[in-house]
Amino acid sequence: MNKRYALGIDYGTNSCRSLLIDLSDGREIGSAVFNYPSGESGILTDSRDPNVARQNPQDYLDGLDAVVRGALQQAASNIADFDASQVVGIGVDTTGSTVIPLHCDGTPLGLLPEFKDNLNAMVWLWKDHTSHEEAAEITKLGLEMRPEIMDKCGGIYSSEWWWSKILHLRRCDPAVFHSAFSFVEHCDWIPAVLTGNSDPLTLKRGVCSAGHKAMFSTQWGGLPAKEFLAKLDPLLADLRDRLYSEAHVADTKAGGLCAEWSKRLGLNEGTAVAVGAFDAHMGAVGAGIKEGTLVKILGTSTCDLMIAPTSKPLADIPGVCGIVNGSVMRDYYGIEAGQSAVGDIFLWFVNHLVPESYGATPDEKFANMEKALSGMKPGATGLLALDWNNGNRTILVDHRLTGLLLGQTLYTEAHEIYRAYIEATAFGALTIINRIEAYGVPVKEVINTGGLSIKNEALMQIYADILGRPMKVSRSEQTCALGAAIFGAAAAGAGTVADIQSKVTATREKTYHPIAGNHAVYRELHDLYRALHDAFGTAEWNGKLGHVMKQLLEIRDRQRQPGHASSD
Amino acid sequence: MNKRYALGIDYGTNSCRSLLIDLSDGREIGSAVFNYPSGESGILTDSRDPNVARQNPQDYLDGLDAVVRGALQQAASNIADFDASQVVGIGVDTTGSTVIPLHCDGTPLGLLPEFKDNLNAMVWLWKDHTSHEEAAEITKLGLEMRPEIMDKCGGIYSSEWWWSKILHLRRCDPAVFHSAFSFVEHCDWIPAVLTGNSDPLTLKRGVCSAGHKAMFSTQWGGLPAKEFLAKLDPLLADLRDRLYSEAHVADTKAGGLCAEWSKRLGLNEGTAVAVGAFDAHMGAVGAGIKEGTLVKILGTSTCDLMIAPTSKPLADIPGVCGIVNGSVMRDYYGIEAGQSAVGDIFLWFVNHLVPESYGATPDEKFANMEKALSGMKPGATGLLALDWNNGNRTILVDHRLTGLLLGQTLYTEAHEIYRAYIEATAFGALTIINRIEAYGVPVKEVINTGGLSIKNEALMQIYADILGRPMKVSRSEQTCALGAAIFGAAAAGAGTVADIQSKVTATREKTYHPIAGNHAVYRELHDLYRALHDAFGTAEWNGKLGHVMKQLLEIRDRQRQPGHASSD
Repeated sequence: MNKRYALGIDYGTNSCRSLLIDLSDGREIGSAVFNYPSGESGILTDSRDPNVARQNPQDYLDGLDAVVRGALQQAASNIADFDASQVVGIGVDTTGSTVIPLHCDGTPLGLLPEFKDNLNAMVWLWKDHTSHEEAAEITKLGLEMRPEIMDKCGGIYSSEWWWSKILHLRRCDPAVFHSAFSFVEHCDWIPAVLTGNSDPLTLKRGVCSAGHKAMFSTQWGGLPAKEFLAKLDPLLADLRDRLYSEAHVADTKAGGLCAEWSKRLGLNEGTAVAVGAFDAHMGAVGAGIKEGTLVKILGTSTCDLMIAPTSKPLADIPGVCGIVNGSVMRDYYGIEAGQSAVGDIFLWFVNHLVPESYGATPDEKFANMEKALSGMKPGATGLLALDWNNGNRTILVDHRLTGLLLGQTLYTEAHEIYRAYIEATAFGALTIINRIEAYGVPVKEVINTGGLSIKNEALMQIYADILGRPMKVSRSEQTCALGAAIFGAAAAGAGTVADIQSKVTATREKTYHPIAGNHAVYRELHDLYRALHDAFGTAEWNGKLGHVMKQLLEIRDRQRQPGHASSD
Repeated sequence: MNKRYALGIDYGTNSCRSLLIDLSDGREIGSAVFNYPSGESGILTDSRDPNVARQNPQDYLDGLDAVVRGALQQAASNIADFDASQVVGIGVDTTGSTVIPLHCDGTPLGLLPEFKDNLNAMVWLWKDHTSHEEAAEITKLGLEMRPEIMDKCGGIYSSEWWWSKILHLRRCDPAVFHSAFSFVEHCDWIPAVLTGNSDPLTLKRGVCSAGHKAMFSTQWGGLPAKEFLAKLDPLLADLRDRLYSEAHVADTKAGGLCAEWSKRLGLNEGTAVAVGAFDAHMGAVGAGIKEGTLVKILGTSTCDLMIAPTSKPLADIPGVCGIVNGSVMRDYYGIEAGQSAVGDIFLWFVNHLVPESYGATPDEKFANMEKALSGMKPGATGLLALDWNNGNRTILVDHRLTGLLLGQTLYTEAHEIYRAYIEATAFGALTIINRIEAYGVPVKEVINTGGLSIKNEALMQIYADILGRPMKVSRSEQTCALGAAIFGAAAAGAGTVADIQSKVTATREKTYHPIAGNHAVYRELHDLYRALHDAFGTAEWNGKLGHVMKQLLEIRDRQRQPGHASSD
């Protein structure tokens, strides 16, 4: 039996990691992590402006070397007859929009000695928010000139995205802008490096980043027309000629591994390297996304992904972050939604508002609060919260929203509030699902991945009870890297993404099923959540809220009655 | 110079205290405190029902003895030529409605051996909430049969009040009810004891308790008609004959000190004893209440008192707890309002949600939070709260309301929330003032008393900025006992209450004046508070709230700009 392996490389915000899998069954035979050494946990910051978040491209190269060789070493020690030549393909995912200014020879400006001390020449990390004014300007112009483009990105262009960052660089540091011949997404640059072709004009660009962040679509001839870009800045229109007119699905082979990196990594020259994509999109594939399955990446924020076949017409879904043909899988629209803060709300709460009576460390506090809240029935807290401490990404697409907690008495305790925040994030998740279903894409099950899905059983049961659907958990703890490996294998011709996925992905044995009695109570609470959501989140809403506190008290009193058994 | 002194005795929830004052200048020459020895901090509870709160009448008698003799001893050691015969009058205030079932000879049932183990025969303390069903029944019947009565008590009859408690006793323990020949308020029983006349049919009843709690008014012939009481229970109608048909202002002499208590206390027999009243009402006099001055007793909850001359017509003020002729001072309507929780909200917050990074004890946490919030500008937190964690007493008169906190981000800190809660209680206070003014009673200044007014300077400045009025603080820390002493002196013929008050009460040198720039910002925030107040607190409200979070963020961003100077 000829063993075949595939390698996935996942670039996160603070570190990158590799995963080497057996293509016959998905067994994970090698993995390594590299923490970016530059700045604060890999992020270059500016004490004068908290919005600045940049990275050093050298960290990516050093990390690439370290995690690939680390995984191969581990595989060799795990498997007696392991041979690196059995690695047939390499896939890469990264954060995004993470934008790198390039010299005309394809070298990131940040690697050139003359720019080594200029943050503006470095990589502009996804969470750099210096471009908020440019984002507002692009949104305004887009809604006026190109409403069809804005419909695909939920009606608002973000400060985290490609054109906002490039336009802000043009304005805040014209010298660096002029030195940049072109720009590349991090996810496209790594395959370019591996295949030895960093020529900005010919390196293969992925449709995932192009479609979700750079307003690229074949529907309107690729990137936005020069006419549109020129209104933002004539130099952006010029730049369009030095970008790209084609973008590829990630199962496309970007090229073969070049001689230099073949030598550095100890892999065969010519090994297939797949076109890159974003972490969440490849992670969705690694988690087992298919038609009807929503993949939820539960982290500090969430990313929700669905696919819908391109063979059937798909309406625009108002308020959903992006709909891009091929961004997750070929022949499917990738539908991306998400919540601006989930784990971040819990972290904020535990760090700022949970007293030491729950424990000495955040982990102890979480554990003890989870224990305390697990015994409660839905609604027994009398509390209701909105999950907007960091704004609302889907479906309101409004970062100028804030948190709300309602129903406190003189006896409300911290673990009850924690439960209310968990419920709020689940109601937020349900709101997204309801919106997607309302536009013709049914959501039959949810597969979860990310730390919270593995370690917080109380949260998962509450999610099942609120979403009213089975909640599964992805088997792998490294779904992004696993997804990247799948694309590497597909680019190597080892099968379609769906075929490979069916062999190497799985969910855990434990599935969280909704408990009917709990779900019924949560439907009542969801009506109240929805009233608050619409009242505070929309300009159009006009109605009454005088019933909210009273109904919460009624539900609370009912659910606190000792004989009551709805949650059993 | 013949020195004259007056003695005030103030019965609180957990202790009683005495205050002996010099009638020429209000100097406090003697005081003593007695903690009730029975139960938990003086409260008899029932582990099966958290609503039960009773007291032992023996504690009142033991306390009377101890605090009067203590004050006299202290005066004797303070003043060389002090002579107890210079004490011309005694006044008494208590909590209420605190109801005592009486034997036909005037002995509280709780003092009789056969009832010593029966909680229902004891004193029913104001905060006993076992009678909530009876309160709802009385409210319903009142609104149907006697709307003019309900108008005077804000439209809702409370479980803390006289008839609710007596009706509940009738139902929960008929044997005790049948043994009770009559009932008396705590504030009327102590003067009865001191004057040696405890005959239920002739002991002098105060108009303060009668009017605010027992639906007594000369407007409808005293207590509610038998016809009304009979609908609740025929035995209540019978009881009416064994209660009272007259009620007196507290400057009335209830009688002279009887021989027995003269001997026990070491005071002249025949010393004038005033008719009793509630602590807040006498406290308002001790704080310096006059026309145009609102006295605010800032404690775990607040009690707000105003007076308006009976010479001018006064409309009913919807949502205000009670309007009673003479309940504070003769020839004035006493207007009572209040907030269900103020200090209690802060205590809940510090005990349940403030981490140890602010200090090891609640006091340290408060002190450090106060330091941290003092430097902030109004609106800079971006937060807005409702002060309803214990319901809303005035102006919504609805205990089925709960707390709300809005505007949290991922950076919100505990001291910012504490500031938001302080502001919320101030907005609640302003809502009361606005309501009273809307019905023709102008509020020119506010005199504060109670612990928070003395020890929390940041809170007082925020109150001044939000209320837009000078905030004064009463000089005495014992305004209730001081007020009682004033009534004792008035009953002795030492002058009118107003005359004596002008000599013996004062405010502190430090007055908190509103800062114009802060007040302007708080007017914007009050509009938002009012929107939430009406939206969640009334059934009628119908409107929009989509602007609330956005305006809060706008104000926050403006107020956080370093150059901005509105609070200087």
